[in-house]
Amino acid sequence: MSSVICQLAGQWADHWPALDRGLQYGDGLFETIRLDSRGGMPLREYHFERLQQGLQRLYFPSQVLDQVILSWQQLSIPDGATGVKLLLTRGEAARGYAIPAIPAVNLQWQFFTSPEWRWKSKPEGLVTGVNPVRLGNQPLLAGLKHLNRLEQVLARQAFQPGWDESLMLDQDDLLVEGCMSNLYWIKNGTIFTPSLAKAGVNGVIRRWLSAQRSILETEARLDELYQADLVFMSNALNGLVPIAALDGQSLSQAPAALAELRALQSELEACF
Amino acid sequence: MSSVICQLAGQWADHWPALDRGLQYGDGLFETIRLDSRGGMPLREYHFERLQQGLQRLYFPSQVLDQVILSWQQLSIPDGATGVKLLLTRGEAARGYAIPAIPAVNLQWQFFTSPEWRWKSKPEGLVTGVNPVRLGNQPLLAGLKHLNRLEQVLARQAFQPGWDESLMLDQDDLLVEGCMSNLYWIKNGTIFTPSLAKAGVNGVIRRWLSAQRSILETEARLDELYQADLVFMSNALNGLVPIAALDGQSLSQAPAALAELRALQSELEACF
Repeated sequence: MSSVICQLAGQWADHWPALDRGLQYGDGLFETIRLDSRGGMPLREYHFERLQQGLQRLYFPSQVLDQVILSWQQLSIPDGATGVKLLLTRGEAARGYAIPAIPAVNLQWQFFTSPEWRWKSKPEGLVTGVNPVRLGNQPLLAGLKHLNRLEQVLARQAFQPGWDESLMLDQDDLLVEGCMSNLYWIKNGTIFTPSLAKAGVNGVIRRWLSAQRSILETEARLDELYQADLVFMSNALNGLVPIAALDGQSLSQAPAALAELRALQSELEACF
Repeated sequence: MSSVICQLAGQWADHWPALDRGLQYGDGLFETIRLDSRGGMPLREYHFERLQQGLQRLYFPSQVLDQVILSWQQLSIPDGATGVKLLLTRGEAARGYAIPAIPAVNLQWQFFTSPEWRWKSKPEGLVTGVNPVRLGNQPLLAGLKHLNRLEQVLARQAFQPGWDESLMLDQDDLLVEGCMSNLYWIKNGTIFTPSLAKAGVNGVIRRWLSAQRSILETEARLDELYQADLVFMSNALNGLVPIAALDGQSLSQAPAALAELRALQSELEACF
């Protein structure tokens, strides 16, 4: 199933205005949210935390988050929905980049049924490769889940046959993330993840993970992954999944590291 | 006046679909076009040239340009329109970044009446400053007028009172362009403009200018502007305009260089 419901400057609707700034400039944010079996949002604090950071960095009024929460509370969740994408924009305004002082925010909720979660369907791990698309460095937008996603569109198009995911480097060939996931590796019992100071999306699971374990943010290159005991990825829908292969080369899945990942998978799934 | 007409997968409409990829990802392109007094598009070859480059780099089918031209030919231009913004997206598709093989392209034409052209209203030149927002470097998107414009939204918000425009540098502090314009300077009779290999929009007037004169593309820093005989900017709506001041400091407007700019302004205005 898939359905979308819009709320335009407070009014429910099933279409979108042609002059919306989200369309014109990508001037907005989104969240991809996994629901539990009762239609609840177990990791809501992490979704709303990032949304609030995005709203602040993009100069939205702070009360917009309250509008979003109120809108969510008014929704009835369609039967069979296992996920929802929230999209929020600065609404309609006069032509030009200048931000209206009081935006008439538009938002939409797109409900969907996921295919089986990747952490279940790929227990042995993902087949990946290094994406030829390099992410641009933009500290002012790094970490946010904003609507400017052309780099991801180009990166997805560059997938080779058989890839489940791909690894994104930045313009300096530093590791950042996956095309749709965050990236981690375990070495001698320590969990590492790339710094997102210049690029990337600070995922819900990435922040959930940082609340469960000590995670070391670092600037690192590809060779770190080949020397790791285990490499894994996360995203809101697919949970925590090991990487089996990178550009045709099998990656280590050392037993102790894999046991740690299995423990984390169980802790995460217990939330849903 | 301002009005918008949409063409969704070939059908005329006055709204926009909520699941359009232009809204979801910024997966599309736009052109801001100055019309002549008869509603014609004098610099159409430059607009369509950049659009075609964008379509190719974003993996649209090549015949999409023909759809755009056909759509343009079917329009009746509203009275009083002096400009039109064309916006084009990859339309609706299944959730996810993957590009549909045959997109059902959505497009819109937003007609408007400009305030008086800047080249007329600011003959003495623009008051500018260096924008604190640095552009990210992304060679795969550089030059295109695509829908991922959050950097410009943030940059516009950073304008100081009294600025007509601002100068954008990249992450390495190299000159790129203005927030809404291209940038040039004249030194000893030579016209220079920043390279757009890594960031920036390759404007219609920039390419028109390159067809009229020899323009040297270069990697340069701010100090080049303080040493120039004349600094000027261009955009499709405002034409060619000198810069009078940069961060409170007057810039040179040497008579020979200014005479060259006045000649170029006349040649450009003769097109309309």
